Amino acid sequence: MHGQDSAHRELKVGILGATGTVGQRFIALLAEHPYFVIHALGASHRSAGKRYSQAVQWKQTAPIPHAVRDMVVHECKPEHFTGCSVVFSGLDADVAGEIEADFRRADLAVFSNAKNYRRDPTVPLIVPLVNSSHFAMIPQQRLQHKPPLKKGFILTNANCSTTAVVVPLAALEKAFGPIESCMITTMQAISGAGYPGLPSMDILDNVVPHIGGEEEKIEWETLKILGGIVDGDDGLKAFDMHSPSPLRISASCNRVPVIEGHTECVSVRFARRPPPSPQQVREALTAYTSDAYALGCPSAPRHTIFVHEEPDRPQPRLDRDYQRGAGVSVGRVRQCRVLDIKFVVLANNVAIGAATSSIINAELAVTKGIIA
Amino acid sequence: MHGQDSAHRELKVGILGATGTVGQRFIALLAEHPYFVIHALGASHRSAGKRYSQAVQWKQTAPIPHAVRDMVVHECKPEHFTGCSVVFSGLDADVAGEIEADFRRADLAVFSNAKNYRRDPTVPLIVPLVNSSHFAMIPQQRLQHKPPLKKGFILTNANCSTTAVVVPLAALEKAFGPIESCMITTMQAISGAGYPGLPSMDILDNVVPHIGGEEEKIEWETLKILGGIVDGDDGLKAFDMHSPSPLRISASCNRVPVIEGHTECVSVRFARRPPPSPQQVREALTAYTSDAYALGCPSAPRHTIFVHEEPDRPQPRLDRDYQRGAGVSVGRVRQCRVLDIKFVVLANNVAIGAATSSIINAELAVTKGIIA
Amino acid sequence: MHGQDSAHRELKVGILGATGTVGQRFIALLAEHPYFVIHALGASHRSAGKRYSQAVQWKQTAPIPHAVRDMVVHECKPEHFTGCSVVFSGLDADVAGEIEADFRRADLAVFSNAKNYRRDPTVPLIVPLVNSSHFAMIPQQRLQHKPPLKKGFILTNANCSTTAVVVPLAALEKAFGPIESCMITTMQAISGAGYPGLPSMDILDNVVPHIGGEEEKIEWETLKILGGIVDGDDGLKAFDMHSPSPLRISASCNRVPVIEGHTECVSVRFARRPPPSPQQVREALTAYTSDAYALGCPSAPRHTIFVHEEPDRPQPRLDRDYQRGAGVSVGRVRQCRVLDIKFVVLANNVAIGAATSSIINAELAVTKGIIA
Amino acid sequence: MHGQDSAHRELKVGILGATGTVGQRFIALLAEHPYFVIHALGASHRSAGKRYSQAVQWKQTAPIPHAVRDMVVHECKPEHFTGCSVVFSGLDADVAGEIEADFRRADLAVFSNAKNYRRDPTVPLIVPLVNSSHFAMIPQQRLQHKPPLKKGFILTNANCSTTAVVVPLAALEKAFGPIESCMITTMQAISGAGYPGLPSMDILDNVVPHIGGEEEKIEWETLKILGGIVDGDDGLKAFDMHSPSPLRISASCNRVPVIEGHTECVSVRFARRPPPSPQQVREALTAYTSDAYALGCPSAPRHTIFVHEEPDRPQPRLDRDYQRGAGVSVGRVRQCRVLDIKFVVLANNVAIGAATSSIINAELAVTKGIIA
Repeated sequence: MHGQDSAHRELKVGILGATGTVGQRFIALLAEHPYFVIHALGASHRSAGKRYSQAVQWKQTAPIPHAVRDMVVHECKPEHFTGCSVVFSGLDADVAGEIEADFRRADLAVFSNAKNYRRDPTVPLIVPLVNSSHFAMIPQQRLQHKPPLKKGFILTNANCSTTAVVVPLAALEKAFGPIESCMITTMQAISGAGYPGLPSMDILDNVVPHIGGEEEKIEWETLKILGGIVDGDDGLKAFDMHSPSPLRISASCNRVPVIEGHTECVSVRFARRPPPSPQQVREALTAYTSDAYALGCPSAPRHTIFVHEEPDRPQPRLDRDYQRGAGVSVGRVRQCRVLDIKFVVLANNVAIGAATSSIINAELAVTKGIIA
Repeated sequence: MHGQDSAHRELKVGILGATGTVGQRFIALLAEHPYFVIHALGASHRSAGKRYSQAVQWKQTAPIPHAVRDMVVHECKPEHFTGCSVVFSGLDADVAGEIEADFRRADLAVFSNAKNYRRDPTVPLIVPLVNSSHFAMIPQQRLQHKPPLKKGFILTNANCSTTAVVVPLAALEKAFGPIESCMITTMQAISGAGYPGLPSMDILDNVVPHIGGEEEKIEWETLKILGGIVDGDDGLKAFDMHSPSPLRISASCNRVPVIEGHTECVSVRFARRPPPSPQQVREALTAYTSDAYALGCPSAPRHTIFVHEEPDRPQPRLDRDYQRGAGVSVGRVRQCRVLDIKFVVLANNVAIGAATSSIINAELAVTKGIIA
Repeated sequence: MHGQDSAHRELKVGILGATGTVGQRFIALLAEHPYFVIHALGASHRSAGKRYSQAVQWKQTAPIPHAVRDMVVHECKPEHFTGCSVVFSGLDADVAGEIEADFRRADLAVFSNAKNYRRDPTVPLIVPLVNSSHFAMIPQQRLQHKPPLKKGFILTNANCSTTAVVVPLAALEKAFGPIESCMITTMQAISGAGYPGLPSMDILDNVVPHIGGEEEKIEWETLKILGGIVDGDDGLKAFDMHSPSPLRISASCNRVPVIEGHTECVSVRFARRPPPSPQQVREALTAYTSDAYALGCPSAPRHTIFVHEEPDRPQPRLDRDYQRGAGVSVGRVRQCRVLDIKFVVLANNVAIGAATSSIINAELAVTKGIIA
Repeated sequence: MHGQDSAHRELKVGILGATGTVGQRFIALLAEHPYFVIHALGASHRSAGKRYSQAVQWKQTAPIPHAVRDMVVHECKPEHFTGCSVVFSGLDADVAGEIEADFRRADLAVFSNAKNYRRDPTVPLIVPLVNSSHFAMIPQQRLQHKPPLKKGFILTNANCSTTAVVVPLAALEKAFGPIESCMITTMQAISGAGYPGLPSMDILDNVVPHIGGEEEKIEWETLKILGGIVDGDDGLKAFDMHSPSPLRISASCNRVPVIEGHTECVSVRFARRPPPSPQQVREALTAYTSDAYALGCPSAPRHTIFVHEEPDRPQPRLDRDYQRGAGVSVGRVRQCRVLDIKFVVLANNVAIGAATSSIINAELAVTKGIIA
């Protein structure tokens, strides 16, 4: 992390779904954060009232942080999170919808990993290395509430497999203009399915060539993230879904016996003719920097995209922990005989693909003054 | 196997590279063959003179067949294979070139798994479920030798990852006319790399997004296999490499921690507009039958292509042994937003992807009278 | 299978828990049985009324047998199993107790894989390669019912990890007299935990050094199986739990990332001094034969124990399917510096460790005339 | 690491076998060391003359440290290591014997991971958390050389699987007196075999119940490490191999599909009757501290032995990185029905089981003034 010397005062944060997979990752990451301080933990009523160490089936490789071990877990109700400048949500989709709405109604700022509000027309879907400009939708979201919110909002990050691919796509569009079509085949880690997730009988010595709803998420979310915001005739802002330059995306999603790190084979066709060369693509990916890092967000990676020269990288086991999993790795940039350029992307699905994205988003909100 | 009642007399066969991975598989399969009888085993000079059970590090799940256990292994020299109607070669590429040429020169019929002669302009590259018509090149290959061969020739089968994809592609071209472009992303089993092959440190909890030379093999071999044979101005036949209707193929190859069975995500665009629907594709794949089965080849699968309806199949662990690995499984046939149709293919890389293909090719040669 | 020519008339069998892991294995095995014919399938009320292919999440590598595919699944009530000479139970322990008792009460012969009745003083716990003599308890079990049963009884097979070790222990005791103490460390396959069983996050790249209740099962069941039957003062028979020659057993159980096949490191101390040599042990293990095979049970393995000479065998992936998983493999027989002799045992936990044992037990019952 | 504030001046160190598995780990660890500074790298003649980043196939998850990336690799000859206070050897056994002797002859202090000198009567075999008292043999080793050495010596650490078990055994002997017998069954990670090590075909979905020479190492090395040093009649010191109280050890070694972390099931019988209770054992293990930590060695773990209370720990994936892999984890302490007490040990085979032990040994040598 850089920027640890920043003079931020401490900000209290809460975690919803604190005993789950994403919640545990939030806790592990936030325990070392320079200014976010864990203040409240929420989980289901089964866990409420217990100390965290008793409520959780801790599955991280580092021990439970001391500051959290004896913290009492609450139910996910806003009254327990008063005073939290930020509420991180690692809730499952089946409960996230209602709970996150309650928290927003209570004027709390919710940074969610759940899918429920990703398609909401006033909720930004932000991959912090890509589209921090979408924070511009927050004021409208607040205003649409009755009565208008002062501090509350919901902001989501993207699905883990979407996050991996949009970072290089954003870099390429920035350098070379619109992408016209994109084929993606993923090889996704089992941790992406949470816990207990996949039965071991289903994945040892196996590939499962299907992940429910995943292909649709990639195909839809990418458009929202890479698209802009337009002012409508009604005076309201709207996400343009990349419509000024239609982008066709086709995803095929597979589960492989890897614990952490999604690997994706990507091929793109640019609108611009002739397309850039592989070498130009490599340079553009390497040169790409994020607002988040430029603005000093402490969890943002120095290298947004690390481009490997070795012919057989990135690999999940070797590269997933580079920069604490906060960046994206790309390799094998080469010509594609069908589209223009193809390459391999690797992103740590539980870091930048989940909790780390939420945390950087919250850091961006602090930096941009959206959170006081 | 069907056709076991066929009245073939026994035919003696030899196996080159008998102690290697492919050689072991030949032995396991041929031990139960209705008319091929193992007559001679060849391996390196280190193994020559030993009994097979002493020379081999047997890695198959069935025990060494009794008929072979005490057979003496020879060096790979034609004089030890006199009387063999068929010589199967499981040799590694670094020695296959010279040895297989020697055997052909000695007028022996060589069915090779090695890559050395796949690009030779008079050597058929035959996936037995697809292009048995390429046997038509054999007479020309024999004639080009000085002096012309009477019985000898070299015939190869395809690379394992090519084999998987050309079977459905052939079925689709047969039903719907030329395919214009095809994107393939493979997730290949470690057994494809032979033994010792990949170090375990490289593949446990990992994906290796690169297999040396594999993408080029798929992109080139597919054209030869799916193409036809044309008569040139010089009176000689030539493989047309699908040139009457150019076909662009782009492959991305990955190694995954699976023991057996290559899974491939395939997307195709047809020349014909509008393209067939997913349902039409499913029906065409299911309806496709091979010459090999029609002609009664005992190792040919009844279902050339099995089309799964379940959303999460085929899977290597569950489907690789169906029909003893001799057929190909397809699933998830659906529309592609970039090309036309996408689907998942699974083929057993050590069965139809290697030894089984050679054996069916030899059965075809017997059926077609090329082998007396 | 041997004895397929036996002139048994067909016997109808039913399967309880037919959609579960063990139930599926029963179906796959019985589909090819020479005289047992699947007549009725039982499962939970959720499955009742559905065709089997719709009720089951089939996880076997062979397709669902045709004869069973469209069979209608019933609730596990005796009235649906009238006419069944044998009822195989693959029920989970939480429901097996009551249901199996109901079936016995209805005068049906139940062969159970569940643990519920293993410790019952009139229920034989039979590993068919070891203690078929315990069938002698059946008459007493029938008599103790009010009113006495004519045909019904409950018989169980052992826990999968117990089964592996008792076979060589029985062979050793037969040849060399009582064993005094035995240390066992298991490395057990994930399939032993059923489906969904272990979450993949828990076992990929991992060992879990604990399996709830497993060590106690091995330590207790082994005594019942290896022990004899004594006539009490009350005129009733009782299992002697090896008490004439006390046997101390200590087990340590581990789960490893292996799909099928339990590997166990075993060390024994004999009562007899001096103890047998490793070579004598090897010979005794090889020479050991089972009643089941001698009596012509078609599912009994020819080699009860296969003794490997190679220094690194048995291995689960290579040896678990030998003899269709019906036998036990032993290797590395050598001296132990603490006890007398140590060796490695491998048994297929889903074959001889579960369904295959039940089936051979039923074949024994037929052979012995216990089932008419 | 503690003690980072220690006022040690920097000490130059060299690494032999720098491109190998253990060498890479030395480099990764030493790059962050408070006072050891990498000064020279040695490898085979194939690597000599190249920059490190070009010579190595780097397989660590952290990138190559900057300070080492462009360092030129030398052949393993003493003249290239002049000025090194410490030479760490990660050489393979086939070359370590001669090279390490050369280095000692050149009066260099060699800390070796190889097995070659472990059985040498004047070479200490030191597990730094256990027997730092064995440094007392160094003066005699130096004197036996002609001419006597001033600074040079060879010191080895133990085999990785030995290291795991001797730490708790030492703690138990310290608390409860001599252990009389000990049974050990290991489940060892593939990284213990180096690179390329095990072929993936041999270990995926498998257990290999044999590791060449490993059982003998555990059974022999443990005696040397846990034994003392005696003064002989000839005025020379000698390792007593635990002979005052004979200790019988029986080991069974297995390879399992785990990347890092050896898990071992251990059972012990104490000389003392009655033996300690499981609770006393837990307390003794927890209370055990190492000289290395007490003396401020920066790489020594705060908790020599961490005792888990959860029933299913330690597990390699969750616990191998605790304290950067420098300590040992124990769990499941309970009674054994054959010996007295049994438990599970986990040690990181590439950290405390290899490079970390050598580094702490060198830190001890500095602390004790053996290295100036």
